[in-house]
Parts: sequence; structure tokens; C-alpha cells
Amino acid sequence: MVPLLKDMNNSNDAEWHFFKRAPSKAPFYELEDVVKDLSFALEDLERHGQKLPLLVLMDNGSTEEDILALMKVKIYDIEVVVVDHHYPGVVEDGKVAVDEYVDIHVNPYLVGGDSNITAGALAVELAGMINPEVKDRLLHLPGIAAVGDHARSDEAEKYIQIAAEKGYDADDLEKVASSIDFEAFYLRFMNGRGIIDTILGLGNREKHQKLVDALYKELHKRVEWQLKAAMPNLKTQKLENGIIFSVLDVEKYAHKFTFPAPGKTCGYVHDQMVQKYGEEVPIITLAYGPDFGVIRATDAVNESFGFNLNTIISKLMVEIPEAGVDGGGHECAGSLKFVEGLSKEVLQGFAREVLSLEK
Amino acid sequence: MVPLLKDMNNSNDAEWHFFKRAPSKAPFYELEDVVKDLSFALEDLERHGQKLPLLVLMDNGSTEEDILALMKVKIYDIEVVVVDHHYPGVVEDGKVAVDEYVDIHVNPYLVGGDSNITAGALAVELAGMINPEVKDRLLHLPGIAAVGDHARSDEAEKYIQIAAEKGYDADDLEKVASSIDFEAFYLRFMNGRGIIDTILGLGNREKHQKLVDALYKELHKRVEWQLKAAMPNLKTQKLENGIIFSVLDVEKYAHKFTFPAPGKTCGYVHDQMVQKYGEEVPIITLAYGPDFGVIRATDAVNESFGFNLNTIISKLMVEIPEAGVDGGGHECAGSLKFVEGLSKEVLQGFAREVLSLEK
Amino acid sequence: MVPLLKDMNNSNDAEWHFFKRAPSKAPFYELEDVVKDLSFALEDLERHGQKLPLLVLMDNGSTEEDILALMKVKIYDIEVVVVDHHYPGVVEDGKVAVDEYVDIHVNPYLVGGDSNITAGALAVELAGMINPEVKDRLLHLPGIAAVGDHARSDEAEKYIQIAAEKGYDADDLEKVASSIDFEAFYLRFMNGRGIIDTILGLGNREKHQKLVDALYKELHKRVEWQLKAAMPNLKTQKLENGIIFSVLDVEKYAHKFTFPAPGKTCGYVHDQMVQKYGEEVPIITLAYGPDFGVIRATDAVNESFGFNLNTIISKLMVEIPEAGVDGGGHECAGSLKFVEGLSKEVLQGFAREVLSLEK
Repeated sequence: MVPLLKDMNNSNDAEWHFFKRAPSKAPFYELEDVVKDLSFALEDLERHGQKLPLLVLMDNGSTEEDILALMKVKIYDIEVVVVDHHYPGVVEDGKVAVDEYVDIHVNPYLVGGDSNITAGALAVELAGMINPEVKDRLLHLPGIAAVGDHARSDEAEKYIQIAAEKGYDADDLEKVASSIDFEAFYLRFMNGRGIIDTILGLGNREKHQKLVDALYKELHKRVEWQLKAAMPNLKTQKLENGIIFSVLDVEKYAHKFTFPAPGKTCGYVHDQMVQKYGEEVPIITLAYGPDFGVIRATDAVNESFGFNLNTIISKLMVEIPEAGVDGGGHECAGSLKFVEGLSKEVLQGFAREVLSLEK
Repeated sequence: MVPLLKDMNNSNDAEWHFFKRAPSKAPFYELEDVVKDLSFALEDLERHGQKLPLLVLMDNGSTEEDILALMKVKIYDIEVVVVDHHYPGVVEDGKVAVDEYVDIHVNPYLVGGDSNITAGALAVELAGMINPEVKDRLLHLPGIAAVGDHARSDEAEKYIQIAAEKGYDADDLEKVASSIDFEAFYLRFMNGRGIIDTILGLGNREKHQKLVDALYKELHKRVEWQLKAAMPNLKTQKLENGIIFSVLDVEKYAHKFTFPAPGKTCGYVHDQMVQKYGEEVPIITLAYGPDFGVIRATDAVNESFGFNLNTIISKLMVEIPEAGVDGGGHECAGSLKFVEGLSKEVLQGFAREVLSLEK
Repeated sequence: MVPLLKDMNNSNDAEWHFFKRAPSKAPFYELEDVVKDLSFALEDLERHGQKLPLLVLMDNGSTEEDILALMKVKIYDIEVVVVDHHYPGVVEDGKVAVDEYVDIHVNPYLVGGDSNITAGALAVELAGMINPEVKDRLLHLPGIAAVGDHARSDEAEKYIQIAAEKGYDADDLEKVASSIDFEAFYLRFMNGRGIIDTILGLGNREKHQKLVDALYKELHKRVEWQLKAAMPNLKTQKLENGIIFSVLDVEKYAHKFTFPAPGKTCGYVHDQMVQKYGEEVPIITLAYGPDFGVIRATDAVNESFGFNLNTIISKLMVEIPEAGVDGGGHECAGSLKFVEGLSKEVLQGFAREVLSLEK
């Protein structure tokens, strides 16, 4: 799209004026994000006489949590395209709740697919439709997204295959995906266009290799550093139902305000347990802080025990209404929020649910 | 003023170059704010050859806490206008402490008035004097300010009446005032000009209605959500002197880093108690965290018991000098700060003062 | 350099386009800083067709901790000049570890000198070589740096003497150095060019005097305020080995998120002990929070007991590997980091090391 912007506006600066990439932190379109987007859009309109922008939400925007922000955008008659692969709620007549506030909604769930078609794949396919000339240059990106999102499907495999043909083997893809995460941690809300392009392999290939190698080495060092503090303080027990349940106080036994943050730390700790016991074993890992928990579980817990994080959260909301329980995510990976004063009750409630799981 | 800027500079961009709105968080002109203002002013001067700005402090700037920041501004010979309705300290010959650093000081207290004439009302009256053409468009704003600031006076009532004639009934005013608070929470230091204009009803009326309705509905939901966690953990007792005293650990029993923040949460909790027991009843609500407290009290506690938050804070400063007690506000609403290690002593000291109040 | 930029580009705006000052917080070139610098550099290159910048790291950049950030910069072929006076590690053939990633490295240690030649002195000498016309105007700056950095050497004394000839006595230098610290606290990542120039005495002398007086008075008030909370809660004991060891819980017994921050608070508390017992006495002061400690010691502890903070940290790393101990600094001043859950073990370990020191 950016090359088209250049052509159509006959100006080198157009791609900067007319294209803004704004990273978001939350897994949905937050109020913090929408006020920024609206402020800039309205100032560009009033001050520079620009048209209101086309808002494209990538890997975000399909769920009920997005509705308030989208509603605000639509009050100003801004056109909205959502390209997402998160579960958008019940589909009726090809429509979901958020569709009232979205002009174009691209989501595999709307047509019988699922989250294994990543937002990265959707983005590249769309880019190819808009401007076929760029597609070839982007064809390794869906492979990165597939690896980064742990997508498991024939399509995902094919994309990984295509990336391999472009010179990125599975190991490279994993390194690039991790490096993006690592760099995004420091970029926060900066768009970091030049750097992200290098990491994704969209610029100079030699620089790409050097940068990814440097980043990956460093992130590996930091993960090791975090695990060195976390692992000796992880409490693991094999429950009567056969589940291996590990608990970590991530506020006390991990470095704070640094990479990896609590969510990723939980993931890395969980990976250690999976490496130790095997991927087929039912393993649940909970990393908690004063007012939150992060949960990772192997597919085995979901398949054999019917474990679903979202169901447990719904139960806890009812059982301990004064704890302000909130959160969610996928069946086997997500987070839990609660008020600090009720943390014991909530965490014990969660453990009780895990204990009561049956094959 | 903005339309005048446009006319006088014969440029559409003038209103953006020559007018900056910078929201402040603290109830006074903070060092964090003044370094930003000075940095921009000095860069505009040196880089763009602009004149130094006229600094207008709205709803801020009258008190001794503002002096250091103002002193810095005056070192650079920047002209300062203060339009405020906070108590500016003892008035002598129509002057107060801050006047040494202020060129024009508008404050009802300087002429025998009080804080019931809101900064919003002062701003609109001033705007009307500078540019009579705009006043009609702004005439509903003092009503919003009166409701938002809980102003009680004949003037306040008249402003609310004027707003009603413009099509904003009391309920609308309350919704707009709350929506501004809610949106400001997410805007932080962004000026958010377009959005704020819509909320205040200065732009398209239909968009105004839709946006305020959406915001109000959402903020109501969030307040309910906060109260659901807070109310079951509120400890209330009727003291021997008849005062209903409620205490909440707002760090433990409320959602953090979200709207409503601790101060507003205390307000909403207090409102619940007032609804339950009645406005005429002496009620004090204290929400505390590790190193702070927020206090709300009904007028009845002030009128019948002589309760004055500022007096209690002064006492605690002397009684527990190592606690670093600080804070203040109005007689019946304000905050308390202290070092974490002495929180028990300070909170018990506060409770002792409340217990010892007599009719 | 800035006047040269103006001349060579024949444009008043050149000094703003082509010169950026970006304050850094950490004592090394952080990943947070380098992503910002790279983002701006790459955007200026792609968007405005500017050349890649010359990166000059001042008072930073010589140590192994700087390597990752520098490596990233070098991947983009950006030229790097480091002007630093921190210990850069073992020098071999006039080279140190960081030199692989640095084009020009100015550091007294590379030529047999030490940190008593401050970065401020190096900067002024360099500026004089680049543009002899400016040197006279800057000649009081090395004196400020010498006092601010507690430099002790003949050169430092001479610089202080030169400053005196320019009208800045020792007291003035101390005030300016402290005012810079104070103002930097509020400026954070803003460059604050105009204000910093005034404080350093590079602009109007009268404004300089007024601003420094105002800042110094205020910072003094805030230090007093902090000490009032801290000193009554300081636990001091004279150990058997003669060392006076003081410990403060700076999270509980000091005001947070304000000036002076924990590191400086520890310094001011330590200064109180030195004033009380004398500079020749072995005194160690430790201010700790949930996951960090700040340490100050008199030279006497280093000279008579061989105290070296870095050695103790290395020992603790080995003794308590799961505590994630990190940190360091100079022999007698620096910081300590660890995970919250092992704070007791780490702090006790530190105390044990101090106890076991022998003359």
C-alpha cells in the first residue's frame, strides 16, 4: 500500500503523511489507543485539511472488547477495516457483534475457519490483492506469523514451506518472531518502521541477519537470566488427576519491568516443564502477581480434561463476585485479573478447579 | 480567542502554531508541567523566531504551591494570566502571595467571592469580553462546570438555568461533566482538542449526543465494576459522636491503573453511603493506599462538627513529624500523603481525630 | 559545534534539524535509548533524505554494558564517537572491549588516566579543538563537572580554579551541579535546551543567577523534607570492626516518585552520617527497597578495609544464584538489584560481607 501512496500522491513524503503505524499493547483496541488515533485524525482534518483516515486494525478488533473504541471512531464517521483472526463470538448469518461498527471485517471465523490462519497471513494476502507487485517480497511473512502464533494447520505448514523456499528455515522464522517480540518491548508505542523492516527481512538482507542474530543472542541471555531466578522458586506438584501443576510468584521471583515480562516469563517457564515432561503430558503453569495471574497449559489438558481457561474464569466471577475477576484468552493460554485483597481466594479457587478436572 | 488568532494572522494554521492547550494532572502548576511549557516556549523562540507565549493558567495557579513554577516562568519574562477559583490564601489589599509572579490574576476570592464561581464560568465570561461573538456558543459551559464542581450559589443556579435554555438539562450537564473526566483519564497530557470539543457540545450536536451517551454508559459500567469490588470490603461503623465513618483499602479492594482512579473511587463509594443514609447525616469516607489517603465528608460534618481536613493534616504533621504528612484540599474533600512505613500511625491518627469530633 | 552547523548550512534551523540532544537515564547506552535514536535516524534518512547521524555518546558508552546497543547502531553503519570517563575494562594495546563497535573512543583510562578527568572536561576540550571560538564561553563547565562528579585531582582543581576566574566560586559550582540534577529529574527525556543553557550559565547571566538560586532553594527544601522522614528511621550501628553501618528502608521511609529519588536520597543520608562522624571514619550507608539497594561508603572503608562494592556483588551472585543479583558501580558508590523474594537473603549477605571486613 505504501508504494501506491507514493505513486498516487507523487510525493516521497506522502507515505509518511498518509500512513501511520501505531503499535498497540493490549489484545484489543483500547481506549488509550483510540483517543490517540482520534486526536491525530481530527487535528489532521482541521489543521492540515486532510481527509479522515481509513482505520485498519490488524490482529485486533474482532471481539466485544473492541466495541467501545470502535463506537467512538464511528461517531466521527471514520471507515474501519478489521483484519483479525481472534474468535469474534457467535457467528450468525456471517455476522458477529462487532460488525455494527466495522465497515469491512476479515476474519477466518466468519467463513468457517479458525485462528490458525494468522493475521500476518491475512495481511500479506490482502496486500497482494491491493498491489500484486509487492506480494513476492512479503511471502516469507506468513511463515514468521505461523511460527510466532504457534499456528497448526495445513495452511500454516504451507506458509512455513514457502518461507523455506525464500531462504528462511523454521529456526530462522522462530528467531525473527522472537526478535520482533523483543524489539517491540523496547519500542512500546513508537512505530520503529526502519528497525522492524530490517528484522522482518524487508530491507537489506545482510543487516537483517546481523540484527536478528544480535537480538536473538541477547534475548536468549535475558531469558536464561530470568529462568535462573524463576526455576528454583517454581513449586511443582503432580496432582491426583495426573496433571503436573506448577505455580510461580512472578512478582517475587522474577526481574520486573524488563524483558521477558510476566506473561512471556510464564511461557518460558512452561516450556521448561514441557521439555522436561513431554508435550503429550497434561501440564498447567500458573505465574501470579499481587493482582494477576498468567496461565499456560498443554493441549493435552484441554483435550483429555476439557480444560478451558475461559470457563474457569466465568466460574470464579460467580463464586467470588467481590474479587472483580476478569481476563481470558485462548483455552490453554491467557490471563486472570483480580483485586489484590482477594488474591488468595482467587488463586485457591483456580487451583481447586484444576484439582477437580477429570479425564 | 482562537477565531481572533485566525483573523489576525490571516492563516488557518495560526490557531495551531499560536495556541497550545496543555492539560495538567495536579491541582497546581507542577514542575513537570513548567519544564515542558518552558522547553517548547524557548524552542519556539530560538528556532522559529516566535515571541514568548502568554501563559494562561486555568483552574490552577492561585495558591502557594504554584509559586515555584511561576517563579521559573517569570525568570524568562513570560507574561502570566491566572484564572482560578481556588482559595488563594489571605487577601491583603486585594493581593495574595502568588501575585508577585502573576501579571493578571482573576479569582473571585480577591473580590469577596468564593469557589462557587467556577473556573469554567470565569473562562466563558472572559472569552465573551475578548470576543463577544463567541459567547453565545459557549453559554452552556458554566452550567457544566457548576455541576461538575458541585457549585452551590445563586450564580451557579443561574448558569444551570442558562444551560437548560440552550437545551442541556441538569442530567445532560452531569453526563457531560463526567464524560470529560472519563475521557481526560485516557487523554492524559494529550490536548485531545477535537474530542473535547465534541463532548462539550462545541461541534456537531448529533455527534455530541452519541459520544456523550456512549461514554456515560461505559463509565457507568466501570464505576459499577469498581463498586462491586469495593463495597463488600468497605468497613463502616457509626461512631459514638454519631458520625458514620467508612474505611476502604483502595489498593487492595479496587482495580488499579484504571478508571475510576482511587480519588474518584472514594467519591463514588462516599456517594453510595450518602444515598444510603441521607445527605444531612454526618458521613466521612476514607480510602487509603500504602502511602496515601483520600477523604470525602458530607457538609454536615463540617457544619455541625467543625470538621476541616486541612486542620487535621496540620495536626498530624506535628504529631508524627517523621511520617512526612502532606496533602490537603477543601474542608470536606481532599487527600493525605505520608511515607509507607508510618501508614498505620497516620491512619490511626486520622481516625482518632474523627472520633474526637464533637457537635 | 552548533555555531558551525549554522554557518555551514547557512540556515538558522539547521542547528535544530541536524543536532539532537537526547538525555539518557541509565549509566549506560540502553536498549530503550537506542531504539529511539535508530527510529529517528532511519526516518530522517528515508523521509527527509538526511544522512545518517554521527552518534556522540557523552559520559556513557565505554563499558561492556554498552555493547549490545552499539552493535545495533553499527549494523546500520552509523559512526559512533564515545566520550566517557568510566572504567572501560582492561586496556590492551590501547584498546578495550567496546572498541569493536566504536569509531572514535575518548577515555582517559585508554591513556593511563582515570575518571577524575570528567566527561564535562573532555567535552569542553573537544569543543575547543573543533571550534576554538567557543571555548572561552565554556571554560567554567569543567569546574561544574568536577564538583558534580566529586573529581579529585590536580586537573580537577585547576578546572575549579579556572571557573573561579570566570566568576563561579566553589559554592556556585555546587549549586549549578545540583540544579542540573534537580531539573533533569523533571525533564526526563526532554532535551530542555534553553533551560539547561540558562542553568549552565551559557545564556543571560542574570537569568542564570535567578534560576539557579530558585532551583537550589527548592531542592534544598525537598532534601530537608526527605531527610525528615528518613533520618528518624535510619538504623545505625558501630560494627566490631569499627565501621559505622547504616541501613534505611527507602521504600517505606522516604517519599516516592519525587526528588530526591532513592539513589540520591541514599547519598544525602550518607552525607549526614559523614558530617556527624567525619570524612576519615569508615562509614557505609545502605538504602534498600523491595528489589534493590543503593550503597555509599567513605573512601576510608575502601582504603583501610579494601571494601569494593563490585567484589561483594560478584560474591553474592555466586552465593545466592537464584536471587538474580546484579548491579555495581564505583568501589564506594553503586547499586544492587535482586528479585524481591530473595531480598532478605541478599541484604543479610551484604551485611555479612561488611561485618567480615578487616583492616
